[in-house]
Amino acid sequence: MRLLLYCSGMTFSKVAIIGPGLLGGSIALALRARFPSTQVSVWGRRAEALNEIRPVVSLASTDLGSVVSGAELVVLCVPVGFMAEITSAFLSHLGPQTIVTDVGSVKAPVVAALSAILKGRARFVGSHPMAGSERTGFAAAKAELFQESVCILTPDAEAEPTTLSAVAEFWRSLGCSTHCMTPELHDQTVALVSHLPHLLAATLVGLVHERDSQAMQFCGPGFRDTTRVASGPAKMWAEIFASNSLALKHSAEAMIEKLQQMVKLIEQPERMEAFLSDAKAARDQIRITQ
Amino acid sequence: MRLLLYCSGMTFSKVAIIGPGLLGGSIALALRARFPSTQVSVWGRRAEALNEIRPVVSLASTDLGSVVSGAELVVLCVPVGFMAEITSAFLSHLGPQTIVTDVGSVKAPVVAALSAILKGRARFVGSHPMAGSERTGFAAAKAELFQESVCILTPDAEAEPTTLSAVAEFWRSLGCSTHCMTPELHDQTVALVSHLPHLLAATLVGLVHERDSQAMQFCGPGFRDTTRVASGPAKMWAEIFASNSLALKHSAEAMIEKLQQMVKLIEQPERMEAFLSDAKAARDQIRITQ
Repeated sequence: MRLLLYCSGMTFSKVAIIGPGLLGGSIALALRARFPSTQVSVWGRRAEALNEIRPVVSLASTDLGSVVSGAELVVLCVPVGFMAEITSAFLSHLGPQTIVTDVGSVKAPVVAALSAILKGRARFVGSHPMAGSERTGFAAAKAELFQESVCILTPDAEAEPTTLSAVAEFWRSLGCSTHCMTPELHDQTVALVSHLPHLLAATLVGLVHERDSQAMQFCGPGFRDTTRVASGPAKMWAEIFASNSLALKHSAEAMIEKLQQMVKLIEQPERMEAFLSDAKAARDQIRITQ
Repeated sequence: MRLLLYCSGMTFSKVAIIGPGLLGGSIALALRARFPSTQVSVWGRRAEALNEIRPVVSLASTDLGSVVSGAELVVLCVPVGFMAEITSAFLSHLGPQTIVTDVGSVKAPVVAALSAILKGRARFVGSHPMAGSERTGFAAAKAELFQESVCILTPDAEAEPTTLSAVAEFWRSLGCSTHCMTPELHDQTVALVSHLPHLLAATLVGLVHERDSQAMQFCGPGFRDTTRVASGPAKMWAEIFASNSLALKHSAEAMIEKLQQMVKLIEQPERMEAFLSDAKAARDQIRITQ
């Protein structure tokens, strides 16, 4: 077992995590479990939010300077709308070789903003580990969260290959496989496979609740699973939707059109069966992760 | 422990299950575990389909007469489109006190058909245990399937109160809670909380697969759960949709309208947050069953 994290020839003796929530907390737990000699420092906005994570990290503090200083890698695990502001606030503590990455669910606006702020000050590549839960906070964090999940890396034109390979190796060392695409393609992809499913789940719950709140008591395991993500944090998702509004609107409109076609098949069981059969085949091929 | 099943003053020394699949098999396993002195007989269309269930029941046969004769309770666990035909086929083996129920996911057409066939020949009340899985067949059956689920009972004008109470007690003895409503209200309710979610899941998978089949490899646990039910049996669901076409179309059209409203909120994060927050509150109240 390597006790210290090395990625692409770089030694990570200190990793700074900005934000002690589900993802930041899970990264901290995974690092501690896998690379106990690597120091992990965590920044949180409120001292109380750090109490739970403090026992498992080297430093948990509201002071950005002490958390970031000396770290070879800084991982931003705050809501996408807060990333630019917090990065500007710790800019003076970075060295030109420091690598910065983030876990934002939307990449084009985040990468554009962070890349501009960090240009000439540090090395940056955006990331999106496709792992999570409807639960939030360190209480839901777990060392295995990234195990067998996919992390999408979104280098822009500024990103150096060595930075990209180091960030990719970082995620792989936590158990992810990695995939690389442009920030724009990432946003279209997640609009379809993550943001749209979330919007559908919330819309379905809203619809049932509005039309027949009594019906909620007859929900079986199908409804429960189909709508699980609707229990996720409202503010975070509203922000994700707005940050990826163009791609999400496009996906939602395509869904509406497809649903209008499906309504016509309800009374044509043979054609409906053929459609459901294709959908089942596609669904059965999904890699089951976590 | 009672070794023999009693419901509302009736002794069930023999229960006949028509269809050895997920639901029929789970009823057989639950009866064996809870009431080992009650005989359980199972009919299947094909002899091979009975091999797995044979060791756990008193009789597994393709001969309807021997399965049904002498049973105080007959539970129909075949696809909804096949219920009338199979009931007509075992009609001569019923006595006037025999209770017949079914597990169909759609109730108005099933109850109308079975009630007409069984009138004056046996006692009938329709049931819909809201339990299941995307998996099918006896291999997926389990004695605990009904534990903490809800079974909806749908008596029509012909149903006698004693029959209703016996069928309700039967389901409660397998671990369900029971709820009573008209067949029509049942169909509207399940169109909203079961059939629409299934249609949405299949439509979402179909959309992603059509537009960007590469995107399927980036599905996280959210997509996986949101679309789980789309792995269910295509023929069975096409038949359920067609049997409940009016209510399902109505629900799907309401969903389309709601989704069109939601698209407008994507760029209004404060209003979107308020909506997601209400949806989360409603979702968090769902009784988690199974």
